[in-house]
Amino acid sequence: MRSAVALALEEDLAPLGDLTSSLIPATATGEATFVSRREGVVAGTACALETARQVGGVTALFEAADGARVSAGQVLGTFSGSLRSLLTAERTALNFLCHLSGVATLTAKYVETVREANPHCRVWDTRKTTPGLRALEKAAVRAGGGLNHRGSLSEGVLLKDNHLGEVPIAAAVKEALARWPGRMVEVECDRIDQVSEALEAGATLVLCDNMSPEELASCVALVRAHPRGKARAVLVEASGAMTLATVADYARAGPDLISVGALTHSAPALDIGLDLSCDTAPGHEQPVE
Amino acid sequence: MRSAVALALEEDLAPLGDLTSSLIPATATGEATFVSRREGVVAGTACALETARQVGGVTALFEAADGARVSAGQVLGTFSGSLRSLLTAERTALNFLCHLSGVATLTAKYVETVREANPHCRVWDTRKTTPGLRALEKAAVRAGGGLNHRGSLSEGVLLKDNHLGEVPIAAAVKEALARWPGRMVEVECDRIDQVSEALEAGATLVLCDNMSPEELASCVALVRAHPRGKARAVLVEASGAMTLATVADYARAGPDLISVGALTHSAPALDIGLDLSCDTAPGHEQPVE
Amino acid sequence: MRSAVALALEEDLAPLGDLTSSLIPATATGEATFVSRREGVVAGTACALETARQVGGVTALFEAADGARVSAGQVLGTFSGSLRSLLTAERTALNFLCHLSGVATLTAKYVETVREANPHCRVWDTRKTTPGLRALEKAAVRAGGGLNHRGSLSEGVLLKDNHLGEVPIAAAVKEALARWPGRMVEVECDRIDQVSEALEAGATLVLCDNMSPEELASCVALVRAHPRGKARAVLVEASGAMTLATVADYARAGPDLISVGALTHSAPALDIGLDLSCDTAPGHEQPVE
Amino acid sequence: MRSAVALALEEDLAPLGDLTSSLIPATATGEATFVSRREGVVAGTACALETARQVGGVTALFEAADGARVSAGQVLGTFSGSLRSLLTAERTALNFLCHLSGVATLTAKYVETVREANPHCRVWDTRKTTPGLRALEKAAVRAGGGLNHRGSLSEGVLLKDNHLGEVPIAAAVKEALARWPGRMVEVECDRIDQVSEALEAGATLVLCDNMSPEELASCVALVRAHPRGKARAVLVEASGAMTLATVADYARAGPDLISVGALTHSAPALDIGLDLSCDTAPGHEQPVE
Amino acid sequence: MRSAVALALEEDLAPLGDLTSSLIPATATGEATFVSRREGVVAGTACALETARQVGGVTALFEAADGARVSAGQVLGTFSGSLRSLLTAERTALNFLCHLSGVATLTAKYVETVREANPHCRVWDTRKTTPGLRALEKAAVRAGGGLNHRGSLSEGVLLKDNHLGEVPIAAAVKEALARWPGRMVEVECDRIDQVSEALEAGATLVLCDNMSPEELASCVALVRAHPRGKARAVLVEASGAMTLATVADYARAGPDLISVGALTHSAPALDIGLDLSCDTAPGHEQPVE
Amino acid sequence: MRSAVALALEEDLAPLGDLTSSLIPATATGEATFVSRREGVVAGTACALETARQVGGVTALFEAADGARVSAGQVLGTFSGSLRSLLTAERTALNFLCHLSGVATLTAKYVETVREANPHCRVWDTRKTTPGLRALEKAAVRAGGGLNHRGSLSEGVLLKDNHLGEVPIAAAVKEALARWPGRMVEVECDRIDQVSEALEAGATLVLCDNMSPEELASCVALVRAHPRGKARAVLVEASGAMTLATVADYARAGPDLISVGALTHSAPALDIGLDLSCDTAPGHEQPVE
Repeated sequence: MRSAVALALEEDLAPLGDLTSSLIPATATGEATFVSRREGVVAGTACALETARQVGGVTALFEAADGARVSAGQVLGTFSGSLRSLLTAERTALNFLCHLSGVATLTAKYVETVREANPHCRVWDTRKTTPGLRALEKAAVRAGGGLNHRGSLSEGVLLKDNHLGEVPIAAAVKEALARWPGRMVEVECDRIDQVSEALEAGATLVLCDNMSPEELASCVALVRAHPRGKARAVLVEASGAMTLATVADYARAGPDLISVGALTHSAPALDIGLDLSCDTAPGHEQPVE
Repeated sequence: MRSAVALALEEDLAPLGDLTSSLIPATATGEATFVSRREGVVAGTACALETARQVGGVTALFEAADGARVSAGQVLGTFSGSLRSLLTAERTALNFLCHLSGVATLTAKYVETVREANPHCRVWDTRKTTPGLRALEKAAVRAGGGLNHRGSLSEGVLLKDNHLGEVPIAAAVKEALARWPGRMVEVECDRIDQVSEALEAGATLVLCDNMSPEELASCVALVRAHPRGKARAVLVEASGAMTLATVADYARAGPDLISVGALTHSAPALDIGLDLSCDTAPGHEQPVE
Repeated sequence: MRSAVALALEEDLAPLGDLTSSLIPATATGEATFVSRREGVVAGTACALETARQVGGVTALFEAADGARVSAGQVLGTFSGSLRSLLTAERTALNFLCHLSGVATLTAKYVETVREANPHCRVWDTRKTTPGLRALEKAAVRAGGGLNHRGSLSEGVLLKDNHLGEVPIAAAVKEALARWPGRMVEVECDRIDQVSEALEAGATLVLCDNMSPEELASCVALVRAHPRGKARAVLVEASGAMTLATVADYARAGPDLISVGALTHSAPALDIGLDLSCDTAPGHEQPVE
Repeated sequence: MRSAVALALEEDLAPLGDLTSSLIPATATGEATFVSRREGVVAGTACALETARQVGGVTALFEAADGARVSAGQVLGTFSGSLRSLLTAERTALNFLCHLSGVATLTAKYVETVREANPHCRVWDTRKTTPGLRALEKAAVRAGGGLNHRGSLSEGVLLKDNHLGEVPIAAAVKEALARWPGRMVEVECDRIDQVSEALEAGATLVLCDNMSPEELASCVALVRAHPRGKARAVLVEASGAMTLATVADYARAGPDLISVGALTHSAPALDIGLDLSCDTAPGHEQPVE
Repeated sequence: MRSAVALALEEDLAPLGDLTSSLIPATATGEATFVSRREGVVAGTACALETARQVGGVTALFEAADGARVSAGQVLGTFSGSLRSLLTAERTALNFLCHLSGVATLTAKYVETVREANPHCRVWDTRKTTPGLRALEKAAVRAGGGLNHRGSLSEGVLLKDNHLGEVPIAAAVKEALARWPGRMVEVECDRIDQVSEALEAGATLVLCDNMSPEELASCVALVRAHPRGKARAVLVEASGAMTLATVADYARAGPDLISVGALTHSAPALDIGLDLSCDTAPGHEQPVE
Repeated sequence: MRSAVALALEEDLAPLGDLTSSLIPATATGEATFVSRREGVVAGTACALETARQVGGVTALFEAADGARVSAGQVLGTFSGSLRSLLTAERTALNFLCHLSGVATLTAKYVETVREANPHCRVWDTRKTTPGLRALEKAAVRAGGGLNHRGSLSEGVLLKDNHLGEVPIAAAVKEALARWPGRMVEVECDRIDQVSEALEAGATLVLCDNMSPEELASCVALVRAHPRGKARAVLVEASGAMTLATVADYARAGPDLISVGALTHSAPALDIGLDLSCDTAPGHEQPVE
């Protein structure tokens, strides 16, 4: 996180620094409040704090923790101190806050929609994250009430059609269990017979991809009836262009998990602003309209 | 760009590498095509090429250059070579392509809408970019036909209300011109009297923020009639929560430029997939020991 | 791997470069062979190749791939080209090769000992790796025929006594399954009643730590008889100061996996040398003793 | 050192953080003591402190400084504070401590063995260090009572047989003294006539490599009798597969220095553990569901 | 700045640290004063403070801020604390201070010479900076009273003869204004007819390169008389091997700005020393064991 | 060197790239020659080649190697290829070439002046280098015919007055020889009695600082007459604000080495330019003056 903030500040300040703030008296101080313009879920407050720390001269304080649900107009926190520093830090802090809160907010919408349809079904993310921000975006998903699928290719096995063109399901699953014991060994299935094959082979997750809710329900039933399903040795995940309009139908089909790429690749930013109230020095009488 | 790709691969491969690809024979080869599932504008092809180069063992070739308009189903390019490498590179290459093409595609929509309303008005971006990706996102805006506002706080002066609470417009502009000669000196204005003040003071851009189209038109008229406007010494920019629904009205009011933060902070990913055709055709009988 | 090699070369060459090689004529060329002085298993050849590439002026070729078993005196590969570059690259290439081959060689010894005692039992590593070299050392373990336990704290759940002082086993496992679905959820057990509790709670691995082989055998029997064991939903791992002298007894007790920290934290380097044969230019008659 | 710790934490925490610690209440606190399970010499305490600092939320305090001799069961220091942070920092701190204390402990054994045989003879290390850890391992050698040979190829001249195949000793030493004045100019010698040649040429160290103790004694006598030896202008070093069993014989032969590659390439880790004592609030009876 | 200091310390301390300071008692403390041996202008104090912070154990305090004019013998600031740390930090801190103060001092000489000749003319720098130090050197120019021309190629358009061989002035300026609105669009001119062409095309700066003061005066007159000149829409810059002997003549010709590459590429270091006063005063009787 | 070039390009191109080159047709090609405007000695050609490599699209070829003496107007090398790339690479390549050739050229002047006065005396540099460029500047000193003093604090012992305030010469030298055997152990002396003390103690270099040539000659005589001097066990270095006007007198006093800080901290850039000759495509008839 520290290096992500350092990189963002470097992007915004190299090589001459903040030209505009240089026009403000070096001794001016102020306080500014982060205000959400919309209802949403907050994420990225640690990045905003770190931005203040790295710029220096600014004290940051957040009332709203990651995961807090906020209403339009609600104050999230404050930056106070050197006015120059505060204005220099503003955009970088906001870029983190708005993007990550956007991810958390969209996640929360999916989570609620799914929970209403099926309280036993959970929403998780994918590896379709913004390059360089995976850790932060996956944390934002958790802030929004979602779970995290694999953090990386290094974390578990997920055999997709592109892999299975080369190796049959049973052989691939067997090899995966032998070489990478203890990990998730998931198989992407387009049809119920593949689910059956994956189950027999020992897969620990079956991913029902691009099925109808009805097909999904059949696959769920198949898994639940199987001895390995009964022994809680295998989970069912659904995926495939989920939208807020369609996800409830899939949830009702009974999978354990639904993955939604949009959480991280298409979440619009949450609109958060920084409202400044300058410290007018005592006795400073100048009329300001 | 090289370091952004290296960072993204590191995120996806550390520390054990691609567990799933390790299950595929090391000698298997394949060819895969990048196919756009939607109409859009392409950006990020250099990142996809660089991903292939860094992973190694994959030859990448793109037919569609950055800025190309593609239709649903159109092939953008190919990865060919080691199947393991190709599958390892897939998600990282796609994460860049989908995100940056998303930015280019949304930009193109704004650019077309504005151009139809006023061919002399241009769309440009803001500093509301994803941390760590500013250079790439700003290039994607250009690929989409947009222009780039300031690259950073170091590039020009933009006096916003937060700055102007501390220093009057005339004094701030004069100081900016003296200390940072040759740069843009832009003033954010909420009212036409501020535009007038900025104009007199020597600002080189006036930013009409959160005005109605009618107010904007008045400001434009004021600027055009002024000697500095006639001498092409000052441009008018409009901003403030532009949407595809409202931007045409603003364009018709006659500004030189309209800035749209959503281009970089809220563009949904363009849906691009990688379709694999393994070199071993189906029905291949070769004995596998 | 590239950055590890770059770091190692930086360590050895900053700031003045290789003083000794500067005394050799810039045009001198040579060929040198990497020769193992002992029997062992090779790992780290990619690092040696990368060292040659980064130093420049040297062509590297390895006959022995990672995982190859070599005998004392066997040639692993060659560096040829500029004599200066070759001598500059020598120590860095060897430091990688000797250390990583040492890890692979020790791993192979454990793997063989275990396999003879119980062909169904596998050896894997721990997170007790040398700082900065985890990816390379875990690859060396694979080269030696071992498997990899968790790559990092981010990859799976392993509840140790230090965690379980704060939360009871059943509650912790339940929470782990809910928050991190699909991952390994392993419980470190000192006593058979803990194994039983972990099994019931849904753990996917039970770690029998510091038990006698007899206690371990009882735990294995318990797991195998349980419905979740029968459904292949849970594995048994043994750990605790394994040595080459004691590991066979543990293997015979029947666990699926035995973890050995020494593979990465205490493997002596494999003794590999670089033997040079200078190219004496044709007609170069000077008597060399 | 800071970057080595940052790299090690990155290895262990990316991208999702510590899954297991996330299951512990965020407010739980504890204190843990670093305890040596074996007798040895401590090194790497600064790395452990830095690990605590970078993870945050943990206060670290070490009683045993680098170089301290500790007995089995002795407490080296403590981590106290957030239980989550403490458990997250544990393995990284231990990986540094155990490895570097292992180097210091093995060094101390060689130093004592040599000192008993010849109090004027010193032990030093080589460039056979673990890639990326040279500075830390060389500091650990000092903690163990050893000295440091060249820090890098940039620090001094050491003409080995591979160099001397191309240039005669006398010419090489003369050139070295001319181009790199003030530095060590050492010559690796297999035979006493080479020592003689190096001495005449002005070498500042002669390295007697792979000789018998008797041959070494002859070389030492030759050097001591030479005017440059009498003027303290040249030192004698012995090397060549030293072991704890053979090193005393070499020390008694009278060299100034003995170099031992094993100090850094083959030191087993010192077994140090972290023993936790959770802060169970006084009398807290709270039922945990 | 932090990374520049870290890099400089790494250069000076890797891999074994400060050998000489290791000979001083670890507990010795001292205070040292930075004293300018010559008259000059100070810059780089933040780097000296940061050096102390990164080395640790040293408290730094600067009386002279960046931009302060100091006389020979004047104290700039102090380092106090651990004598080892203080001596380790000395050279790195001085290397920054002396180089950057050298830039500021030379800048101040140009600024004064120009100001006396023409109070409306300003001196600014070029992109001819020392690789890796652009931000710091450009800040030192400001400390010396100069201004900053473009921070980078990314900041504005400057069409030189090398560009204009390929595209005519009018077309290039038009394209620049269209693609990069709001930026400086400067044209390098060797002759007055090029100035005229640039003016008509809409350039915002004209760079009169390698002209005589008389030619420059003609160009200035041309610009001032033009409507765009009257509207303050275009500035005149002079360049071309300026020296302290010739720059006044150019200033009197009336340009707005004069650029001087020597400020950053040929400024001699300002001679600043660090004078130590150990805490143990001479005559100290304390027994040293 | 690679990272220094990458850093310099990053400085000059982030975040929007080269705005001006973007105005040139992407397909235009050209060839440009590096021409020295002054007599001097070349250094930094590897940096220029690396700059071309990193920018891409440019082929670089240098006729003049580092260390070559060139006359005014002499061609050093060429860049050919994409005109955009060539112009983008120009300034970065020149910044390295001009600065490093400046160091080499000033070094060569000192070397020649000293050689004429005393062919046995050599010139070397100090640690007063530009932060971040030590390796490159020290290589430029060698290109100019100079030698390199310590590369860093880690390379050898140099006891200055600031150290010797705390520890007496004899004790410090003895400790240095014991703890850092084989290294230079140099003592800074202001008076001949200190030289005597350093000699007796076993110093390997004595640094006569700020003495008159006569005092220096006395010290040289003292050293040459001493048994350790006769055994070539100690060298004499002179230092102290050497100029081209005074250095010959010091050289004639007979020291082995003279150190000159100005070589790296105050060398003016060598004036080198890049002259472009565009490739006018065949049949491209446009009149170009």
